[in-house]
Amino acid sequence: MPKLNEHYQDLKESYLFSEIAHRVSAYSEAHPDANIIRLGIGDVTLPLGSLAIGGLHEGVNAMASAETFKGYGPEQGYEFLRKAISEYYARNGAEVEPADIFISDGAKSDTGNISELFSNDNVILIPDPVYPVYVDSNLMGGKHVTYISGNAENDFLPMPDPSVHADIIYLCSPNNPTGAVYNKAQLKEWVDYALANDAVILFDSAYEAFVSDPELPRSIYTIEGAKKCAIEFCSLSKTAGFTGTRCGYTVVPRELVFTASNGKEMSLHAMWNRRQCTKFNGTSYIIQKGASAVFSEEGMKQCQENIHYYQENARIIAETLKKKNIRFFGGVHSPYIWFECPDGMESWEFFDYLLNNAQVVGTPGAGFGENGKNYFRLTSFNNHENTIEAMKRFEKLF
Amino acid sequence: MPKLNEHYQDLKESYLFSEIAHRVSAYSEAHPDANIIRLGIGDVTLPLGSLAIGGLHEGVNAMASAETFKGYGPEQGYEFLRKAISEYYARNGAEVEPADIFISDGAKSDTGNISELFSNDNVILIPDPVYPVYVDSNLMGGKHVTYISGNAENDFLPMPDPSVHADIIYLCSPNNPTGAVYNKAQLKEWVDYALANDAVILFDSAYEAFVSDPELPRSIYTIEGAKKCAIEFCSLSKTAGFTGTRCGYTVVPRELVFTASNGKEMSLHAMWNRRQCTKFNGTSYIIQKGASAVFSEEGMKQCQENIHYYQENARIIAETLKKKNIRFFGGVHSPYIWFECPDGMESWEFFDYLLNNAQVVGTPGAGFGENGKNYFRLTSFNNHENTIEAMKRFEKLF
Repeated sequence: MPKLNEHYQDLKESYLFSEIAHRVSAYSEAHPDANIIRLGIGDVTLPLGSLAIGGLHEGVNAMASAETFKGYGPEQGYEFLRKAISEYYARNGAEVEPADIFISDGAKSDTGNISELFSNDNVILIPDPVYPVYVDSNLMGGKHVTYISGNAENDFLPMPDPSVHADIIYLCSPNNPTGAVYNKAQLKEWVDYALANDAVILFDSAYEAFVSDPELPRSIYTIEGAKKCAIEFCSLSKTAGFTGTRCGYTVVPRELVFTASNGKEMSLHAMWNRRQCTKFNGTSYIIQKGASAVFSEEGMKQCQENIHYYQENARIIAETLKKKNIRFFGGVHSPYIWFECPDGMESWEFFDYLLNNAQVVGTPGAGFGENGKNYFRLTSFNNHENTIEAMKRFEKLF
Repeated sequence: MPKLNEHYQDLKESYLFSEIAHRVSAYSEAHPDANIIRLGIGDVTLPLGSLAIGGLHEGVNAMASAETFKGYGPEQGYEFLRKAISEYYARNGAEVEPADIFISDGAKSDTGNISELFSNDNVILIPDPVYPVYVDSNLMGGKHVTYISGNAENDFLPMPDPSVHADIIYLCSPNNPTGAVYNKAQLKEWVDYALANDAVILFDSAYEAFVSDPELPRSIYTIEGAKKCAIEFCSLSKTAGFTGTRCGYTVVPRELVFTASNGKEMSLHAMWNRRQCTKFNGTSYIIQKGASAVFSEEGMKQCQENIHYYQENARIIAETLKKKNIRFFGGVHSPYIWFECPDGMESWEFFDYLLNNAQVVGTPGAGFGENGKNYFRLTSFNNHENTIEAMKRFEKLF
């Protein structure tokens, strides 16, 4: 009989969004006339820009004739896209060579798969609250996780504790779910800590395109020394509305070389390359054509128009919370607004309260970890009209 | 310092196709006027059918307006595609429910990732010669592999040895690289062996669309009992020319339930679902639209036209080998022709001989395992004209 990977028994049931859907549909059935407004899920709603659409059609057309047909592409991604992303990095103040960039079908795949490169005897720091993929992908492999606390005292931006040693550190900024953003000095402190500990930072910058203050880092590679200690994951999901189109990229600098127990040097870049060449066959040529259109200056302008639309929604939500003196995090350089549930409510309790009394759906913080259990996340991924209406109801309620 | 996954040191350098490219380019530089014909790589060359192209454009168009825009889709794939594949299975004589089908970006990802579901103390049988992904993905995870010998005596179709126990068995039919195909009686023997041993068969049917004899099984689920012991991987790469477009699917029957060491029952279907939901965000909606067009009856007719074209090339190669009394495998229900190198040559030696004397490029069998070291693979993925010319040169040579 096959012996199964029993570490899967260590996973908590992932019921967050199915439980939300279940409660919303029960309410909806009981109140068929209710106008429910959904500010819960972190998924974009605006269509792709015309340049991305043009690039995608071009990709499809190439598949229609023998002269331009594309079979297997390079597992690492096409040079035209790696180059376009490298140039995008340069415009944002980071020097990243095309050869260090791996194109994939999304940051979820890469942040999930990266743990394969590490053995099971590492000290792995993961913030709480957090995007659940970091935790679950490690637990699945039999790895042990040490949580670092994000909380109101540290503005949900946990900082390194020099007295504690770590080998691997997950950071996400702008953060999902809290919307908090590390500034350069804070990120520098993490990079210095990683260098001092010979540790690797796994940096998720999926929401970087929402950063509107040029002083805030959109890439960890804007910090000196980061190439010696950091892998960065990014994605077109939130940058360009590619959640259903699927394209991401991961930077693994060739500087990341460590010594194995037998004294041999092992390169994380070479390992990730081998991993991708063995278990991945490259991202669709069609999608890469669409992605490369996104990274042109004009394509990125179109993306920024959509992002401004979401940012305006975030501003509307933030204004309401300010007016009501509810302290919140995020909402400026992020599509997410994170706040403590009023009156000491737990997050699921507040979820029901908001649904029943304002017909507004959000996401209970408990879904993101222990530290989220009294917090709530609203997202800016709806239209202005609904966002304004939801906030009117919210105002009336408190 | 991070402790790396040192099992990566157990991998052999994967230099097969880069070494081929290197030798071809060296020859080409030395002989700039040589007309080199490539029958080496297993990659399609004909453009996609008009229905697939139409489906892909439709998918892109949906992304262009808010009413039809698609964000995150189900990680398991859209119901419309799972249903279309289920109906395709039915037309090929296998009953597979949509709920057991997981859509992915390709069979390489799934055959590579599946080993995560198993612990490291299993007896894992893998044929030699073989598609290298099965071996490498297991070695990467620290798993041990037991080879079963494919050779001329068993027509490169190794059969179970009832005296040896196994927990996990990899099979690929029609086979890459040998082109050999199990018949129903042989596959039944494997299914019966798996059931008797409580083992799981990981069945790769990526080349099923090349089977033209209705008596030969195109799916393991045409064999009684297979749902209790087999996972099947398939792909649109060879069926529909999607090597650069990227779409595959894997069937994990809900019947596959095994008991863990603590007595709890664990379902491979539930585990794979959890794996995909954690480390994968679904295949692009655009690509799934193209794929569903492929699985319509008309779409599949267009695919079959391309496959017939390749089959005709295979026939041309096979005829030449027959004429020259060289025993070969495959070439009928497969795009691959596999034969022993003449005059006792080793496969790299024969590679050079063929390149130097006939300007024809093939693939040395050594790249697929120990048992391939005196064998050679030719593929039918070129045009008729080149294939005919290559075979003329081949005939002259022997």
